[in-house]
Amino acid sequence: MRTKEEWMGLALELAEATIGQTSPNPSVGAVVVKNGKLLGVGTHMKAGEPHAEVLALEQAGDDAKDADVYVTLEPCAHYGKTPPCAELLVKKQVRKVYISCQDPNPKVAGKGIEILKAAGIETEIGIEEERGKAINRFFFHFLKHNRPFVTLKAATTLDGKTATKIGDSKWITAEVAREDVHRERHRHDAILVGRNTVEKDNPSLTTRLENGGKNPIRVILDSQLSLDGNYHILDQSAPTYMICGKRADTAKFEKKYPHVNVIQLAADTIDIADALQALGEEKIQSVYVEGGGQIHASLLKAGMVDECHWYIAPKLLGGQDAISAIGGKSPELMKEAVEFNLVSVEQLGNDIKIIAKPKGAN
Amino acid sequence: MRTKEEWMGLALELAEATIGQTSPNPSVGAVVVKNGKLLGVGTHMKAGEPHAEVLALEQAGDDAKDADVYVTLEPCAHYGKTPPCAELLVKKQVRKVYISCQDPNPKVAGKGIEILKAAGIETEIGIEEERGKAINRFFFHFLKHNRPFVTLKAATTLDGKTATKIGDSKWITAEVAREDVHRERHRHDAILVGRNTVEKDNPSLTTRLENGGKNPIRVILDSQLSLDGNYHILDQSAPTYMICGKRADTAKFEKKYPHVNVIQLAADTIDIADALQALGEEKIQSVYVEGGGQIHASLLKAGMVDECHWYIAPKLLGGQDAISAIGGKSPELMKEAVEFNLVSVEQLGNDIKIIAKPKGAN
Repeated sequence: MRTKEEWMGLALELAEATIGQTSPNPSVGAVVVKNGKLLGVGTHMKAGEPHAEVLALEQAGDDAKDADVYVTLEPCAHYGKTPPCAELLVKKQVRKVYISCQDPNPKVAGKGIEILKAAGIETEIGIEEERGKAINRFFFHFLKHNRPFVTLKAATTLDGKTATKIGDSKWITAEVAREDVHRERHRHDAILVGRNTVEKDNPSLTTRLENGGKNPIRVILDSQLSLDGNYHILDQSAPTYMICGKRADTAKFEKKYPHVNVIQLAADTIDIADALQALGEEKIQSVYVEGGGQIHASLLKAGMVDECHWYIAPKLLGGQDAISAIGGKSPELMKEAVEFNLVSVEQLGNDIKIIAKPKGAN
Repeated sequence: MRTKEEWMGLALELAEATIGQTSPNPSVGAVVVKNGKLLGVGTHMKAGEPHAEVLALEQAGDDAKDADVYVTLEPCAHYGKTPPCAELLVKKQVRKVYISCQDPNPKVAGKGIEILKAAGIETEIGIEEERGKAINRFFFHFLKHNRPFVTLKAATTLDGKTATKIGDSKWITAEVAREDVHRERHRHDAILVGRNTVEKDNPSLTTRLENGGKNPIRVILDSQLSLDGNYHILDQSAPTYMICGKRADTAKFEKKYPHVNVIQLAADTIDIADALQALGEEKIQSVYVEGGGQIHASLLKAGMVDECHWYIAPKLLGGQDAISAIGGKSPELMKEAVEFNLVSVEQLGNDIKIIAKPKGAN
């Protein structure tokens, strides 16, 4: 017999498999079980398509009566594109609903659980809760702050350098780590870089994985909208947004690059907080920031780094004048550094991936 | 019944327990086993005291006849402070000797094994060989190169900084990582820093662990011998060596600090290779280099980093002008970086310890 944590583990696995493809909806998995036997599985595939519970209950059919349902997120209580899942669970007369974590969405926020309880269905909340919350951290963050979750990504040598003094950076990490970066691109709604990075490296910023993957929206910060040339990022292989300041000549740019979405801010220069707010208005829930150092420094200063993905190649470049991952000016005191908690430390081939979250973040 | 790898594991554990206390001798463990029963254990404690095999065979007494002996390093074949262990094993009429790794010492180098074979004692070499070699990597390196094994140690923020622009560095890592540094000090014969580090941080560079530990020899590079003042490193809590250039006024310094050992090089300035050669002449087999960035840069440039111990605290300081772990000038191209292989990646509390060895090193 599998334990309730193991059944929830299966539901979580189903939810995790869809990270990157459900936005703006959360990733949710559900399994239906009776007498230790699996009767139905489901996971929400895409916004506008059926919820996980609907798919799993459908597979279970009439056997859903008196069954246990494991769902990774509180069942919804509101009429959206589909009727509320909480009501469906009541209608199917399930015995008990196990929930990994509550839905902070004000339209749900406990109401789904209330509907179940009112109908006499047992509930148990908080099974593998941390894992359940982590799956939808972008979604939860966006609901709470109305701006995208920011993942700051850097790939450095062991001595913290992203490029030599003349800007050469090819390559720092090896294939396995670079492939992992493409998986992260798939998971995020958008990817953000500065104009300098485009001019220097001419990156495509698309998701290139052997078995496919979703291209995130490419966002470039360019206050003057002066980017002009045959850059990969201005092609049509993925959606591109340019964020610029109020004096930029948007008409000229839009005429030349009609497929690019231009977002003009109210100020002359780009304040990173304004840029993120504008992306939030576009319903972008997560942004993967791939440099350069000045943008990293602005985010750090604004306290808007929500997670840090640091790839380290065990090589020493040397040189105070080699380019550091975070630009800008050093503070006076070490205690002014922004402190993180380690989430994970992983070896990827001969490289290392460190995930860390700012102390105090939830 | 324990396997031969498990018995050798016990012998290796015994050897590992003495790392840092046997120099200039290697750390060696031995166990005597017959019919699956342990009869004797021994480990070499200190130069001048009995070898591991002698102690283990003594415990086994007459039962050593026809017993199996597991020893982490090839038994010695030469008359030193004690008679050769290979001959003792023959005399005790043991059945078989399992050896983790051969002794590259030209006085031994296979001769110990030959003595055993000639006497009709079975031998098996190479059990848990990598672990056996790692225990005595300082000793082996010294035999081969006649200069100390160099461990480059740094403690940095995630963005590779060892101090703010004004030099503040307290503290980067937390207690657990700092305690680990003291364990490494105990394991090394000497600890090396530059004059700048002494003047800036006034470190004691002693081993301060709850349950004791050996103080390494403190070595300071100071070409002019201009260090003067009430520095901890000039006290008598541990031996101190000053390395200086040919124009330094050694008489004046020695008069003021008679307990400090001054090594004067032939050149005006200190070439790191000359300094290491001088330490080799003092029979110092291992040096733990704790900075600063200029010394790290010289070692890197000279290709004399044998192992890298990198402690990373998950914090972001920011600033191109904050102090990098490796000073000097950046090369032009990323491919000029010195590449390492990861040996281990470990979490120490909320910090990370990375051990890496230069590619191509053995």
